[in-house]
Amino acid sequence: MIVVLKKQALERDIDALVRWAEGFNLSVNPIFGSHTTVLGFVGDTSVIDVDTVLSMPCVERVMKVQEPYKRANRKFHPEDTVVDVCGVRFGGGGPIPVIAGPCSVESEQQTTLLGERMRAAGASMLRGGAFKPRTSPYAFQGLGTDGLALLKAARLRTGLPIVSEITNPGSIEAFAEHVDLIQVGARSMQNFELLKLLGRLRKPVLLKRGFSNTIEELLMSAEYILSGGNGAVILCERGIRTFETQTRNTLDISAVPVLKRLTHLPVVVDPSHASGISALVEPLALAAVAAGADGLIIEVHQDPQNALSDGPQSVTPDQFADMMPRLRAVARAVGREL
Amino acid sequence: MIVVLKKQALERDIDALVRWAEGFNLSVNPIFGSHTTVLGFVGDTSVIDVDTVLSMPCVERVMKVQEPYKRANRKFHPEDTVVDVCGVRFGGGGPIPVIAGPCSVESEQQTTLLGERMRAAGASMLRGGAFKPRTSPYAFQGLGTDGLALLKAARLRTGLPIVSEITNPGSIEAFAEHVDLIQVGARSMQNFELLKLLGRLRKPVLLKRGFSNTIEELLMSAEYILSGGNGAVILCERGIRTFETQTRNTLDISAVPVLKRLTHLPVVVDPSHASGISALVEPLALAAVAAGADGLIIEVHQDPQNALSDGPQSVTPDQFADMMPRLRAVARAVGREL
Amino acid sequence: MIVVLKKQALERDIDALVRWAEGFNLSVNPIFGSHTTVLGFVGDTSVIDVDTVLSMPCVERVMKVQEPYKRANRKFHPEDTVVDVCGVRFGGGGPIPVIAGPCSVESEQQTTLLGERMRAAGASMLRGGAFKPRTSPYAFQGLGTDGLALLKAARLRTGLPIVSEITNPGSIEAFAEHVDLIQVGARSMQNFELLKLLGRLRKPVLLKRGFSNTIEELLMSAEYILSGGNGAVILCERGIRTFETQTRNTLDISAVPVLKRLTHLPVVVDPSHASGISALVEPLALAAVAAGADGLIIEVHQDPQNALSDGPQSVTPDQFADMMPRLRAVARAVGREL
Amino acid sequence: MIVVLKKQALERDIDALVRWAEGFNLSVNPIFGSHTTVLGFVGDTSVIDVDTVLSMPCVERVMKVQEPYKRANRKFHPEDTVVDVCGVRFGGGGPIPVIAGPCSVESEQQTTLLGERMRAAGASMLRGGAFKPRTSPYAFQGLGTDGLALLKAARLRTGLPIVSEITNPGSIEAFAEHVDLIQVGARSMQNFELLKLLGRLRKPVLLKRGFSNTIEELLMSAEYILSGGNGAVILCERGIRTFETQTRNTLDISAVPVLKRLTHLPVVVDPSHASGISALVEPLALAAVAAGADGLIIEVHQDPQNALSDGPQSVTPDQFADMMPRLRAVARAVGREL
Repeated sequence: MIVVLKKQALERDIDALVRWAEGFNLSVNPIFGSHTTVLGFVGDTSVIDVDTVLSMPCVERVMKVQEPYKRANRKFHPEDTVVDVCGVRFGGGGPIPVIAGPCSVESEQQTTLLGERMRAAGASMLRGGAFKPRTSPYAFQGLGTDGLALLKAARLRTGLPIVSEITNPGSIEAFAEHVDLIQVGARSMQNFELLKLLGRLRKPVLLKRGFSNTIEELLMSAEYILSGGNGAVILCERGIRTFETQTRNTLDISAVPVLKRLTHLPVVVDPSHASGISALVEPLALAAVAAGADGLIIEVHQDPQNALSDGPQSVTPDQFADMMPRLRAVARAVGREL
Repeated sequence: MIVVLKKQALERDIDALVRWAEGFNLSVNPIFGSHTTVLGFVGDTSVIDVDTVLSMPCVERVMKVQEPYKRANRKFHPEDTVVDVCGVRFGGGGPIPVIAGPCSVESEQQTTLLGERMRAAGASMLRGGAFKPRTSPYAFQGLGTDGLALLKAARLRTGLPIVSEITNPGSIEAFAEHVDLIQVGARSMQNFELLKLLGRLRKPVLLKRGFSNTIEELLMSAEYILSGGNGAVILCERGIRTFETQTRNTLDISAVPVLKRLTHLPVVVDPSHASGISALVEPLALAAVAAGADGLIIEVHQDPQNALSDGPQSVTPDQFADMMPRLRAVARAVGREL
Repeated sequence: MIVVLKKQALERDIDALVRWAEGFNLSVNPIFGSHTTVLGFVGDTSVIDVDTVLSMPCVERVMKVQEPYKRANRKFHPEDTVVDVCGVRFGGGGPIPVIAGPCSVESEQQTTLLGERMRAAGASMLRGGAFKPRTSPYAFQGLGTDGLALLKAARLRTGLPIVSEITNPGSIEAFAEHVDLIQVGARSMQNFELLKLLGRLRKPVLLKRGFSNTIEELLMSAEYILSGGNGAVILCERGIRTFETQTRNTLDISAVPVLKRLTHLPVVVDPSHASGISALVEPLALAAVAAGADGLIIEVHQDPQNALSDGPQSVTPDQFADMMPRLRAVARAVGREL
Repeated sequence: MIVVLKKQALERDIDALVRWAEGFNLSVNPIFGSHTTVLGFVGDTSVIDVDTVLSMPCVERVMKVQEPYKRANRKFHPEDTVVDVCGVRFGGGGPIPVIAGPCSVESEQQTTLLGERMRAAGASMLRGGAFKPRTSPYAFQGLGTDGLALLKAARLRTGLPIVSEITNPGSIEAFAEHVDLIQVGARSMQNFELLKLLGRLRKPVLLKRGFSNTIEELLMSAEYILSGGNGAVILCERGIRTFETQTRNTLDISAVPVLKRLTHLPVVVDPSHASGISALVEPLALAAVAAGADGLIIEVHQDPQNALSDGPQSVTPDQFADMMPRLRAVARAVGREL
C-alpha cells in the first residue's frame, strides 16, 4: 500500500501513522520526492482499512498495490476453477454450456416443453425465475415457491439441472434443496447478508454483476462467498448501466477477458438482459463466445408476447435452435466446443 | 400510452394488439403518420406491462405518457406529505431537521457523548449504523443487534430519535421495535422483499437512492412501501455513480428540485456519502439547503481517524457545530428555518 | 411527434400551439386521456425544433416518433452502403478489411516496414497519426504535416491506402490531397465546423464515436457529412466512458448490431482504443467480427515500449500476424471473409 | 510516480526500466513487498509518459503521485487567481458576477433590450451565442459573424462586457477583436488546436467542462491555455452526462469545492445547460452560490417559446430579476456579495 503524505504534514502526525502501521506488523518504507513524500507499507495490508488511513491528518491519498480480493485472485490460484453443476462443467477450457429458459416459470407444461425443445437444440441447463425482482410493485412478481416446484418437475422430466434466482435470505433452505445452481441477481450482488449465507452452503452459485458495479466489486462479492467456504462460484456479465439508451444495458464484453486474467473463476455472459432486445441476443452471444466466455445464459420463451415478464428480450425456441450451430462454429473458431 | 407500430406491421397483428388492449378496457386511438402509425391507449394503462406490448410482433416502440408511480405522484397528491418521527417533522416547508451521528455505532459512551454534543449544536436526530453493508468481507461489519441496543440507550440519554440502516428482512422486528426511522441503504433500494415488509409496518422509512438508480426507480421503490400501506416515506439523495473519480459519488443536487416537483414526499440529502470527503460536507450541505432539501443527514465522529468505518467522510463535533450557523443562514436566505 | 400537454394547460395556449404547428403544414390529432391530453403532430416534423415545442407554456413533454436523422436512416435506404477506399470496400457483407498501423507516425522506415509486415499478415489499409490530440500539453503532439508526408511515402512503398486523423479544419486541404480515408477522432465527433467541411469533400470519412456520445448523436454527426453531399461515411465504435476503470473505455459491442439495424452505413470497430490494453485487443477484435462488424482498426507498433504514444494498447507485428488466422476463422463462422 | 512490477518480471527488463528512468534524471527507489515489488520514481516525472512506462514488459501498473497539471495547480500557486474582464472580476472571494443573456443572439434590439433589463436586475456581463454547435445539421446554427456584430452593438448600448462561444480556430481573430471573454464550449474542451491558439492570446477565456470530461481533464485543458502564456482562464461547471434522464445533464455541484481546492483559477457554474429546464435554474443557481462558485452564467430570453435555441432552459427577464435577491441573500449567508 502506498500512502501519499500531505505537503504540510506534521512530524508528529507522520510518526503516529508509522507507529499505527507498525502495530499491524507492517514495515514502512519512505520515499522522499521533490514535492511529496510517500510511504510504502509492506506486509499483509489486507488487515488495514484504507478509509482509516485516509482519515489520518497527514494523509493526502492512498494507493492500493494489491487487489483487495485474495481467494478469487488468479495470482494466488493460477489454475482455472471448474464448477460442476450436476455434471455440467463451467470453466477450465472445456465445452461451453448453454443455459436457457424462460424469464419467469409460468406452468409445468411450459417449462417442461421448453426444456425438452432446448435440450434437443443443445442447451445443457434450464433457467427459470420463481421470485422476480420487479421495479414496479404492480408487475408480476413470480410464482414463488410454487415456481420452484414447477422447476423441480421440469428437471425430472428433462434431466436438465436448473438455475433460479434467490431474492431473500429467508428462502435459502428452499433453494438449497430444490435448485442446482443458485443465481444471485444483479440487484442482489451487494446483498451481503445473502452472500454470507451462500458462503455456508455447498451449492454452486451464479453471481451476476450488478448493473452498476465494477469488476472489482464483483470479485469482492465473490470473495464473500469464497471466504465463507463455498468455492463454487460462477461469475456472470449481464450488462452495465451507461448513458446509452438504445439498449437496456451496455454489455461490457471486455469484462470477459479482464475477468479471465484477474480470477480463476468461470465467467458466463447473459446477452438477453444485457440488451433487452431479442434481435440482439444472437450477435451478443456470438461475441461473448468469441471473447472467451465459459458459458451463456439465454432467455427463451415459446410465446414471448404472452410472457409474464421480459418478453421483448426472449427468443423463441426456433430462434434458439437456429443460432446454436453458429454459436458452435464460433466456439470452434476460437478453439472451444459448445 | 403511445404505441409506435412497425413500418411493415401486418393487419392481423395490429388487430390482435387492439383486441388485447381492449381486453383491459383501454380505448385505442390511431394516428396515421406519413411513414409511421401510432396507437394511443387511453384508460388505466398502469394495469398493462410495457414489456408485453413491446414483444408484440407489430410494435416498434412504446412511450409512456403517465408516470408508472401513483401514490408517490404529486399530480394525484398536490400537498406535501409531512413525515413525523417522534415529533421531528420532515417536509411541508417547516424547519429543516438535521440528522447527525457516526457511520457505525461503536460504544454506548461514544454514541451518547456524540448525541449530546450534536443536540447541543442543533441536531434533531441521531444516526448510527449497527448492520454495515461493506464491500469487503474482511472489513468491520457492525455490532449488529448489540449496536441497536447502544442506539436505544443513546436515545434514552439524549432524547434524540434514532435512525439506523436495515440490511436483512430477518431483522425487521428488531428494527420495528428499537428504531424510530428505519433506513433503507443505497444497496438495498431495490431489495423488493425488504420494501414489501416495510410497507406493512407503521414506522417511518428513510429510503436512500441507489448510487446508480434513476429518480423514477427511487419513486417506484417508494411506491412499493406506499402501496403496502405505509405512507411515511422520506427520500434521500446521497450521490450517484459517474465517471468522475475525485469524489466517491456525484451528488445529484438537481434531484432535490426534480423530486419536489414529481412527488409529495420529503427529500433529504446526505452530503457525507455523496462526497466521501469530510472537507466537502459543508459546501454540499449548504448547497442542499439552498436547493430546497427538507433535511440533512451528516456523519459525525469524535475521532474520525479511529472510526471503525467511513472515517474520511466524517466531520468532528467541532466542525459540525461550526457549520450549523452557516446552514441556518442559508436556510433563512431561502425562506426556511433550520 | 407526440406532445404531452400539462394537466392545467390553458385553452388559448393549446390553440396557439396548434396554430403554430399548422403553420408548418403539420396536422394535429388530439387524444384525450383520463388525466392527460396528448397531441399527435403528423407530417414532416423534422422541420420543427423539439426545444421550441418544449418551451410552449402548455407543453409537459415531447416524444419523437421519427428518428432525427434521414440520410443515415436505414428506413429510407434499406440497402447497405458500400464505401470504397481505393479498392478496399467497407460494408455490403463482403470481405472484412483490417486497418492496422502505429498510433503515431514516427519515421518513414518505421511506417513502411510496419506497413509491409502488416500487408503480408493480411492488413488492407495503413493507419497512422500525424496530428495527435493529447490530454496533456506536455505530451508528444505528432509530426504534423511531416507525418502526412511519411504516410504518403509509406503508401507508395506498400501500396496500402492510408487513414489518418484530422484535428483542425485548417488542414482540410492537406488531408484531401494526401489521405485516402480521413478519420474524425472521438474528441472531434461533434466538431460540427469540421463535419461541414468534410461534407463538401469527395473523400471517404471514418467517423469515430465520441467516448460519451450516444449512438443517435453519432448518426446525427454522420448526417452532417451526408447532408453536405458526401455519402462515403464509415462509422467506428471505439469504446465509451463508463464507471468501469479496468479498461480505458468500455467497448459498446451492442452498438455494432444496433447500428446495422438503424443505418445503412458500414460499421468498424477499434479494439485498441476501446480497451487501452494490448492483451485485450485480440478477444475484442474476435468479438467485433462475431457481432457483425464491417471492419477492424488495430494499433500495431514494432516496439510498443518505445512508441511515442499509446504504447500500452499496441500489439507487435508478430502478435498481429498471430491473431489474423483466428479472426479469419471467426469471420467464416459467421458467414463472412476477412 | 509509483511503478508496480509484474510478479514474473525479468531482472533484465527491470534493469532496462531503471536505466531508462535514470536517463530522465529520475532516481529510482525500490520497495520490496511480500508478493510485489514497486519502484518509486523521484524527480520531475512530468517529463515522462505514463503510457511508455505502462508498455514496458515488466510493468503491471503505474500510479501517479503528482498531478499532471502544474500551472493550474494550487499547490504551486496558493493564491486565488483573479480574472478581470473589463473591470468585472472573477475569483479572489470578491463579489460574485452574474453573466446573463440569450442562448443565441437573434437581433440587435433583442440583445440590447435584454442586456439593459438584465443590467438593471444586477447582471454584470452579457452572454450570447453567434456560432452555435447543434447536434442536428437541420437546426439553427447561429448568425455567425453578424451575431458578433450584434453583440458588439449591445455592449456599446449597455456597457456590459460580452462573452460568446468560439467553435472554430478560423474565427480566432474575430473573437480576439470583438469579444471580451471567449467561451470554449463543452464540446470543444478537448479541441486542443483551439486551446493552443487561445494560449497565445491576451484575452480571458471561459473554459467549459465537457459533459463527459473529468475534473482532471478540465484542468489539463486549462493547462494548454496557461502553458501557452495566457493566464486568464475561468473554469465553468455545466453538468456532466450520467444515466439520469430527468435532467439534460447532471450538475456536478461537488466540482465547485473540489476545483477550489485543486486549482487557483475561478470557477463559475451554468445552471441553465446543466438542467435544460428553466424551472431548475433558480434552485441550482442558489446551490452553486452556496457551494462557493465564483460566478454564474444564466440563459435569459424575453420570449423563450420563440427562442431560436434552448428555449426550455431559458428564464424570462422577470424570472431573472425575481431570483436575484435570493441569490444575493444566499451569497451573504456564505460571506460573499453578489
